[in-house]
Amino acid sequence: MLLKEWGEFGLIDRVRSLFDDLAAGAPAGTEGIGDDCAVIPAGDDTAWVVTTDMLVEGVHFLREAIPARDLGRKSLAVNLSDVAAMGAEPVGSFLSVALPPATTTEWMTGFLEGYKALSAEFGVPLLGGDTTSSLRDVAVSVTAIGRAPADRIKRRSAAQPYDVIFVTGPLGDSAEGLADVLAGHADTPAAHTHHNPRPLVREGAWLGAQCAVHAMMDLSDGLASDLQHILRASGLRAFIDTDAIPTRTSIERAATGGEDYQLLLTAAPDRAGTLADAFARQFGTPLYPIGETAPGPPGIAWLRSGIPFTPDWHGYRHF
Amino acid sequence: MLLKEWGEFGLIDRVRSLFDDLAAGAPAGTEGIGDDCAVIPAGDDTAWVVTTDMLVEGVHFLREAIPARDLGRKSLAVNLSDVAAMGAEPVGSFLSVALPPATTTEWMTGFLEGYKALSAEFGVPLLGGDTTSSLRDVAVSVTAIGRAPADRIKRRSAAQPYDVIFVTGPLGDSAEGLADVLAGHADTPAAHTHHNPRPLVREGAWLGAQCAVHAMMDLSDGLASDLQHILRASGLRAFIDTDAIPTRTSIERAATGGEDYQLLLTAAPDRAGTLADAFARQFGTPLYPIGETAPGPPGIAWLRSGIPFTPDWHGYRHF
Repeated sequence: MLLKEWGEFGLIDRVRSLFDDLAAGAPAGTEGIGDDCAVIPAGDDTAWVVTTDMLVEGVHFLREAIPARDLGRKSLAVNLSDVAAMGAEPVGSFLSVALPPATTTEWMTGFLEGYKALSAEFGVPLLGGDTTSSLRDVAVSVTAIGRAPADRIKRRSAAQPYDVIFVTGPLGDSAEGLADVLAGHADTPAAHTHHNPRPLVREGAWLGAQCAVHAMMDLSDGLASDLQHILRASGLRAFIDTDAIPTRTSIERAATGGEDYQLLLTAAPDRAGTLADAFARQFGTPLYPIGETAPGPPGIAWLRSGIPFTPDWHGYRHF
Repeated sequence: MLLKEWGEFGLIDRVRSLFDDLAAGAPAGTEGIGDDCAVIPAGDDTAWVVTTDMLVEGVHFLREAIPARDLGRKSLAVNLSDVAAMGAEPVGSFLSVALPPATTTEWMTGFLEGYKALSAEFGVPLLGGDTTSSLRDVAVSVTAIGRAPADRIKRRSAAQPYDVIFVTGPLGDSAEGLADVLAGHADTPAAHTHHNPRPLVREGAWLGAQCAVHAMMDLSDGLASDLQHILRASGLRAFIDTDAIPTRTSIERAATGGEDYQLLLTAAPDRAGTLADAFARQFGTPLYPIGETAPGPPGIAWLRSGIPFTPDWHGYRHF
């Protein structure tokens, strides 16, 4: 039987249950598979968060379409976004690359300069990694480590009923850019956005420090898919007002497109307004309320002009 | 210009110098690129060690030659070996895999069972990772985290003049097995050893606790190459008695073959005998003394029957 019949989440579920009995061997308070990062208590009142992501040529990027510098930058960005999603600050990163024989020093220099530029923007040191050759394709694997006061870490499981659901910015730009790239237009503004996601490092750490924020994660697979993780982990359903989703493209693309790396969070309803005001003062951009959580079986109820509807979005699966 | 003209160490040197100015941003006491693991102070009197290794199909393994179970096991083994080489105990691991469309559930189940079996042997929980598809080749990236009392961590740079140089077991078996595999004989005992390296997890942690041990690392690239790292980091030369190198194969293969994952360590000469006795009592196998360090420019002087000689080993480069 081919592995794809399990699907990505089927595979992850199998991995989780296979290794379940070893979880007790971890340091007390350790949290493994299931959130944007693993959490390991540091020994004082802080905790480490650890995440790792792999980018593979032909699957996550087309080598001829993405500038080496953008790929280097993006390889780190997607990991810093996971650290931010826990409400933590990045401490360091590890970079592993597998490179085919035809790789040039110019390409590698560009890749490293992009990775370095983002590292420097947020003061994240490179602490290690691995370099190896590959037969044919480029593969990049990055591990990022962050740290936060243990009582401020934001988990997917922490949403409460009647929380306000926020996103930090417009959705769908990256999917728009991906469509351009796949159509052979790698030089459009949207393609540039797709190749240069901005990890919300400062926003994540700031939101982590706010008690009003309950659950948080980053939007890598798309709102319709990612929100399900919060809802299942928290045992809640959600009402999403599609008219309120900030976007510059279609609502379908905004709801289902991946790789925006905006933050998705839920907040206590009585403090949500104050939170949004403070966020806007701090960062000059709004928090966008797009709906609320409610008791009930995990799942999303989509609303248009206040009326529930069943999306016929291509590729959207109901849970 | 092709990247291979820089060579692996040339690339690592460039990465290190490019990111050098960011090192000051790491938590005080952090040690990045340059040892088997990075070291990050934990906040109490312990430190975390972190390592990451990537295995790529066609470069590190042949998918048709290595059983999936062995590959899963080995992917973790090489990382646990790095943790052991720092004198630390493993705390957890992260597993990322990129899998081509033809991957079967049977193959993946075997891979995970192998990874799990070694995890269970040493009680190492799986804390996270990433699963993705690839176009053609399997790539595996594992990150392992360990912990040790901060004052017990063993570094490559800690060798002292006139230290005794030890290895923990016979060298060259893995190279012998690789030769078998490349000749199409994947079922020999040596091939099995090549596919099933035993990380010296308990030995490494025990040696980490001994003050008599100065420098330590694991033997992944071969003695002739790996010892140079200790010598350069410590600013010493070494005299190696080739007659004393424990091996079941040729001295050339023992000195230059990779992937044995034995530990290489240096110890204070006045306590080396006591250390070796205690190790033998603890583990039932000897520590093998193979030479000593001395003041002088970094490099290895090879001796045969007490007489210096210049190896003509294939592929051996003088430094």
